[in-house]
Amino acid sequence: MELKELQKKVIEFRDARDWAQYHNPKDLAISLSLEAAELLEIFQWKDPQEVEACKSDPESRRRVKEELGDILIYALNMCHAFGFDPSEVILEKLELNEKKYPVEKAKGSAKKYFDTGT
Amino acid sequence: MELKELQKKVIEFRDARDWAQYHNPKDLAISLSLEAAELLEIFQWKDPQEVEACKSDPESRRRVKEELGDILIYALNMCHAFGFDPSEVILEKLELNEKKYPVEKAKGSAKKYFDTGT
Amino acid sequence: MELKELQKKVIEFRDARDWAQYHNPKDLAISLSLEAAELLEIFQWKDPQEVEACKSDPESRRRVKEELGDILIYALNMCHAFGFDPSEVILEKLELNEKKYPVEKAKGSAKKYFDTGT
Amino acid sequence: MELKELQKKVIEFRDARDWAQYHNPKDLAISLSLEAAELLEIFQWKDPQEVEACKSDPESRRRVKEELGDILIYALNMCHAFGFDPSEVILEKLELNEKKYPVEKAKGSAKKYFDTGT
Repeated sequence: MELKELQKKVIEFRDARDWAQYHNPKDLAISLSLEAAELLEIFQWKDPQEVEACKSDPESRRRVKEELGDILIYALNMCHAFGFDPSEVILEKLELNEKKYPVEKAKGSAKKYFDTGT
Repeated sequence: MELKELQKKVIEFRDARDWAQYHNPKDLAISLSLEAAELLEIFQWKDPQEVEACKSDPESRRRVKEELGDILIYALNMCHAFGFDPSEVILEKLELNEKKYPVEKAKGSAKKYFDTGT
Repeated sequence: MELKELQKKVIEFRDARDWAQYHNPKDLAISLSLEAAELLEIFQWKDPQEVEACKSDPESRRRVKEELGDILIYALNMCHAFGFDPSEVILEKLELNEKKYPVEKAKGSAKKYFDTGT
Repeated sequence: MELKELQKKVIEFRDARDWAQYHNPKDLAISLSLEAAELLEIFQWKDPQEVEACKSDPESRRRVKEELGDILIYALNMCHAFGFDPSEVILEKLELNEKKYPVEKAKGSAKKYFDTGT
């Protein structure tokens, strides 16, 4: 589906409830943080094997899907608050990342590259 | 642009760098949390008027756009790790939210509704 | 009470449950993030007046106290994992902050100072 | 050192800079979230062995110490904003946790216990 079309549905949902009044950038950013925490909670205390097992566990899959849904919905609301086209947001960041992490440098040595890149 | 097409570009970026090996769900969830924190940092210590002013401040707009880009990109990577169609993730969550926050109950009393809903 | 004495109680609680095995630094840091998110959730969607009102609202006070307890307990566990004396951790950071934010520069212009200081 | 004495130093630092005006509970909670994210960032993309190695790596130890310092300082500021004695905050939460995680139930089966407890 077109990302813009999805964003339109998200904004219609918001407007049907008169929630634009609450959707200031600070509280939207807080909400994104809280939803990201709820997603992270699913993997708290889990070792790499248990994390991997979540991929095929129906209850974990259901929770991950819901939290990802919340994150994407809030991100689209935030794009709307700033008048950003969400497709552009993604494409422009990929372009910046291309420059920051050129293939020849980043490939196969990702971790060391991150460490010096911070 | 089609959301699936955008996701394809995100995965191509990842694969060109051999980064799939790092993209386990736990570290992707950590990364989403960290990017959400970087977005939130833009509004730290700002009062409602200063937050509103960010919408028309070029430097704030640039930072918000970049952090939103990171969040959307990691969210698409996470969808991929679980084999979720990202459009479906959004549409299914909107449907769940329709039931959780029916228009007649949620409209105009959002805050009280949230408080009892936790 | 002596901070070291409090830390001792926290570690005794952990050891009585054989939880040292779960307390690796990464999961402790995740736990601190999650507890900070639960604290932040109390103030989500609240405007400055409503935030202020939380200070005298018994239910908000109870929740804030519990989340702060969790944060302090995990912070003491993390100090223990690295063999840090928690009093020293606080005093050394205050000293670093004295240099980073000297009184003459930071006073009365905190926000601008933060903005250029990042 | 006495925790109350440490808190007094934290508040003196704040007052010397006239920062009480910024220290509303919402922004303090945001700050705790951001500092917790900076702590977590140290362990991003690290596998269990690399995480363990951080405990003896001087640069990681320095960063962990600083971030823990920030977290403890903000937590003491937040206790002050609500008029809580920080020792009491810790002791009361330990007591609540004693009831929530009784030794006989929690010991040796921590993970399963957590999973059903959420």
